Amino acid sequence: MEKEYESKDILFPEEGHPLTEEDTEDIAERIQDLVEQDQRPEAVEVISHLHPADQGEVLDELPVETQQQILEALPPEEVAEILEHLDSEDAATIAGGLEPDVLSDILDETDPDVTADIIKQLPEEQALDVIGEMEEAEEVIPLLQYPDDSAGGLMSLEYVVVKDSATTNEALDTLRQQEPEVEDIRSIFVVDADEHLVGELSIARLALAKFGTMVRDIMDTEIIFVTTDTNQEECARVMERYDLDQLPVVNEEKRFVGVILSEDVIDVIEEEATEDMYKLASISGERVSGPLRSSIKNRLPWLSLNLATTFLAALVISLFESTIAKVVTLAVFLPVVAGQGGIGGTQTLTLVVRSMALGEITKRGGIRLLGREAILGILHGLILGIIVGLVAYFWKGNYMLGVVLGLAMIGNLIVAGLTGAGIPILLNRLKIDPAVSSAVVVTTCTDVIGFLLFLGLAAVFISFLL
Amino acid sequence: MEKEYESKDILFPEEGHPLTEEDTEDIAERIQDLVEQDQRPEAVEVISHLHPADQGEVLDELPVETQQQILEALPPEEVAEILEHLDSEDAATIAGGLEPDVLSDILDETDPDVTADIIKQLPEEQALDVIGEMEEAEEVIPLLQYPDDSAGGLMSLEYVVVKDSATTNEALDTLRQQEPEVEDIRSIFVVDADEHLVGELSIARLALAKFGTMVRDIMDTEIIFVTTDTNQEECARVMERYDLDQLPVVNEEKRFVGVILSEDVIDVIEEEATEDMYKLASISGERVSGPLRSSIKNRLPWLSLNLATTFLAALVISLFESTIAKVVTLAVFLPVVAGQGGIGGTQTLTLVVRSMALGEITKRGGIRLLGREAILGILHGLILGIIVGLVAYFWKGNYMLGVVLGLAMIGNLIVAGLTGAGIPILLNRLKIDPAVSSAVVVTTCTDVIGFLLFLGLAAVFISFLL
Repeated sequence: MEKEYESKDILFPEEGHPLTEEDTEDIAERIQDLVEQDQRPEAVEVISHLHPADQGEVLDELPVETQQQILEALPPEEVAEILEHLDSEDAATIAGGLEPDVLSDILDETDPDVTADIIKQLPEEQALDVIGEMEEAEEVIPLLQYPDDSAGGLMSLEYVVVKDSATTNEALDTLRQQEPEVEDIRSIFVVDADEHLVGELSIARLALAKFGTMVRDIMDTEIIFVTTDTNQEECARVMERYDLDQLPVVNEEKRFVGVILSEDVIDVIEEEATEDMYKLASISGERVSGPLRSSIKNRLPWLSLNLATTFLAALVISLFESTIAKVVTLAVFLPVVAGQGGIGGTQTLTLVVRSMALGEITKRGGIRLLGREAILGILHGLILGIIVGLVAYFWKGNYMLGVVLGLAMIGNLIVAGLTGAGIPILLNRLKIDPAVSSAVVVTTCTDVIGFLLFLGLAAVFISFLL
Repeated sequence: MEKEYESKDILFPEEGHPLTEEDTEDIAERIQDLVEQDQRPEAVEVISHLHPADQGEVLDELPVETQQQILEALPPEEVAEILEHLDSEDAATIAGGLEPDVLSDILDETDPDVTADIIKQLPEEQALDVIGEMEEAEEVIPLLQYPDDSAGGLMSLEYVVVKDSATTNEALDTLRQQEPEVEDIRSIFVVDADEHLVGELSIARLALAKFGTMVRDIMDTEIIFVTTDTNQEECARVMERYDLDQLPVVNEEKRFVGVILSEDVIDVIEEEATEDMYKLASISGERVSGPLRSSIKNRLPWLSLNLATTFLAALVISLFESTIAKVVTLAVFLPVVAGQGGIGGTQTLTLVVRSMALGEITKRGGIRLLGREAILGILHGLILGIIVGLVAYFWKGNYMLGVVLGLAMIGNLIVAGLTGAGIPILLNRLKIDPAVSSAVVVTTCTDVIGFLLFLGLAAVFISFLL
């Protein structure tokens, strides 16, 4: 609140108000201009007034050479704070451009869990160099064994732990010894003689306890915990379900090893939601401002797979070329059949995949769901089939065309409901991520079966259509 | 950790391990059985051993009458805890079935922000009845003015605030007076004589301060805050960007009024991500297990809108009926043109909408993005256009068919890129939610323009196609 900015011509945020994306871009431009005018100290001055999170965002907008020039001019503990606020990919990109001896000094100041995430993303040789140069490596090395998306990869080592035989005064002493690193913690954890987690004690209760109280007498013994190999999505589910602000992590021997903080889980939830959304749209990890080559590498395989499946649909139509030659109007209604089936399938699919991700669908619930979506398909099909049949009849003046199109619509919306629910349920049982590729499969089903129904019925009743 | 369960034949979770959805269903069934066998005390006994969050999930699986029977048998403070763990819709549904005098006793024990969320969702008459019966109504009434999706609607009133002129001992006394409600707080807030927020002090630092220290000398003065009318999505963005575990909220006069906790923001992020995903798939708020009628009410309008747009595509084809009559093979490739344009458009659209939601696209960035997606469209179009042209040529033996199809593919993927990026950017500038209905618009564009290009080119070069 008492920050004073020297260069007032830069768009700084109002006191206490966070920087917008536009502010970030403006500041990045200004810094780039300064560096290009050989005014590096001024550029460093501008960035050093920002919040570490904003410094990271500004750096992210700058070219790699400028990033390095700025980072080398900042003290290691400030760079460490910047890295802690960036997501691990961006942090690794920025860190990867620094010399091993510079980087190791910085990583010695960084939280071990962030350091581990960064080192895991460096090329192996560079990673080994950096670890070799680090002084605090022994804190980081055990964390390297856990996969990124597990509780072990997510947990923080900033915790205070005391024995259940301690008094509150001893606990306060332990807390004091670990200051200032543990200043933001909310509670301390209590373990027994075997280091098994037995309780949790909020700092507020600890601070207010009477002199000489035993920790075990005032600690909370109802603790929910996860193991180091618990998937990060599952950790997020648990923290959300039980409204936890932190979740202790134990290892295979049930020894307490770390804690997951709710602010770190926020990133996980956003990432997982983004991933599922992208998978449903047949894209994978991609950034709107990344290099074109990576966008092509990411989207082209899906476009090609989709191309192959549209040829399946084309093949079905080509089976009925002679029917279409007799009644060309049939071609006019092909997009109506395919379009309705596609959107109906996507509606069901998205609902089911997202509900699965949120843990709302049980194994038994799957069968019920399949029945439910089939009934919805019949109801939607009846309503829309009658409308579409009437429109076709009044437009083209042939009642049988209306009947054939209406029946195809009913059938296709049932297929849409069944595949939209069935494909992700099946993939889930097979332990395959239900979001990946289900959209392509579902629309292929609705296209192929929709055309088969429509053109097949037309071929059967061709004498009524002429 | 020391919980003891009396009825061991029920699938209770392992000590400390959270309940799965399957466990929840099993327990709900067991309770329903007990209630049906007139063993209500036993049913209440089973549920009372669970964590309040699990109690809520179990209740959610039970029929309304059973819910009421169980809730009326539990003490009000236990029901209050259950409501605090449920999302506000479920909480309102469960609470809405109780008598005003029972409900008011419960809501007197519930956190004011949760109470306000529940009351806002009750029918007006019932809400007034309940408020009239409540003893703690004066805490809740001010919260009713804030919209649900604003910082004011999201904030908690469980905070401790002290004057900047206080000593740490006075601060500890204030904390002690508010025990045990504030036991889980992480820091206290500091205001000046005008109640303007001037600092924040972690409980750990407070607990370790020397006797007689002034709060203002050890408090943190760099605080990021939001106002009561800040949108909840923006609050989530800020907390994520700055890795905050709590975010103070001030009113119009800049007076400190509440605090947003990171565990509450987790729900917001999940809700917002779910909403965007559903809007892109043309569904709105819906549950996989809700009543069929609400699913139809939710999906049918979108299916009907889509139906109308597919008739636009049909209209375009019908303009070229005479061309198709001459070369029936053209009909075969209609789904190839439409399918590729549709998936290309959806890829771009999803990427852009999600990046907007995550605050990654600036105003200036929009134009750059449009150019980027157009270039990607050209590149994807060239690659896939050549492939598809060759396939068509070898399949049907006519080189001009390949050329026409290839050109239509290039054109359509450019349209897909331009509309996939352009429509959400345009909607966003018009302050319309970019996720709503953009999918329908984009696929309509790719269908209509794709068919126009393909069949139009075919009509022009018809003599080469015969």
